[in-house]
Amino acid sequence: MIRGVHHINFLVRDLEEAIARHERLLGVRIERIDELAGRGVRIARFRAGPTWIALVQPVADGEPMRHLERHGEGFFLISYDVDDVERAATTARAAGARTTSAAPRTGLDGWQVIDIDPADAGGVIIQFCEDKAAGSRA
Amino acid sequence: MIRGVHHINFLVRDLEEAIARHERLLGVRIERIDELAGRGVRIARFRAGPTWIALVQPVADGEPMRHLERHGEGFFLISYDVDDVERAATTARAAGARTTSAAPRTGLDGWQVIDIDPADAGGVIIQFCEDKAAGSRA
Repeated sequence: MIRGVHHINFLVRDLEEAIARHERLLGVRIERIDELAGRGVRIARFRAGPTWIALVQPVADGEPMRHLERHGEGFFLISYDVDDVERAATTARAAGARTTSAAPRTGLDGWQVIDIDPADAGGVIIQFCEDKAAGSRA
Repeated sequence: MIRGVHHINFLVRDLEEAIARHERLLGVRIERIDELAGRGVRIARFRAGPTWIALVQPVADGEPMRHLERHGEGFFLISYDVDDVERAATTARAAGARTTSAAPRTGLDGWQVIDIDPADAGGVIIQFCEDKAAGSRA
């Protein structure tokens, strides 16, 4: 069911500063900067092999902003690459976990994502992600 | 320089409970359980594509135990796959970051790792990992 790590999100307060730091220390190049208005965030991302590393700056109220206020900068969530996000969520629910939405929500590039409730996942936000573009690349 | 995400470590208080939860919710199978006495931890890991997901239970004093006491369960570090850990560390140092050791330390399976000081990496433990076994697989 889990094909890999699709993306990992880190919360940052200052996106430009975080971009500069990652480019300098890791020798990576940010490929894309996007806004995801529904989540109230700006997102810069670079590739680490098949995995996107996303630097996420909350700019409006929403779950990312509340998480930043509560926990500070750092790790936000891990999103596992699956071929069928609804089937993955069904498996998790059948195993006794709640998900934070019944239906998938749409992330960057049309990614379809569903989160397991962190209360049922050891306090970590674990997400399933179905990425048709990546699937067709694989 | 960064070839992918080699591993991601999550701190847990009860390894058996965390193993059961991951197997149940994600449909994964733990491949290995090891002890790393030098770090005072037990580690269970599963594969997510090319990335190891490691569940780390501190059992003796050390940096992981102190991190768990300070921050609780959850994300501990991200380790990027590089072909030359010393060269990667040199790049980070040249960019103004400190590393927490001058020479690599040895992780599971002989992995050679060096951490960037989190004070210079936005509060996140970012690690470089040279894994000769994985290199020869690639």
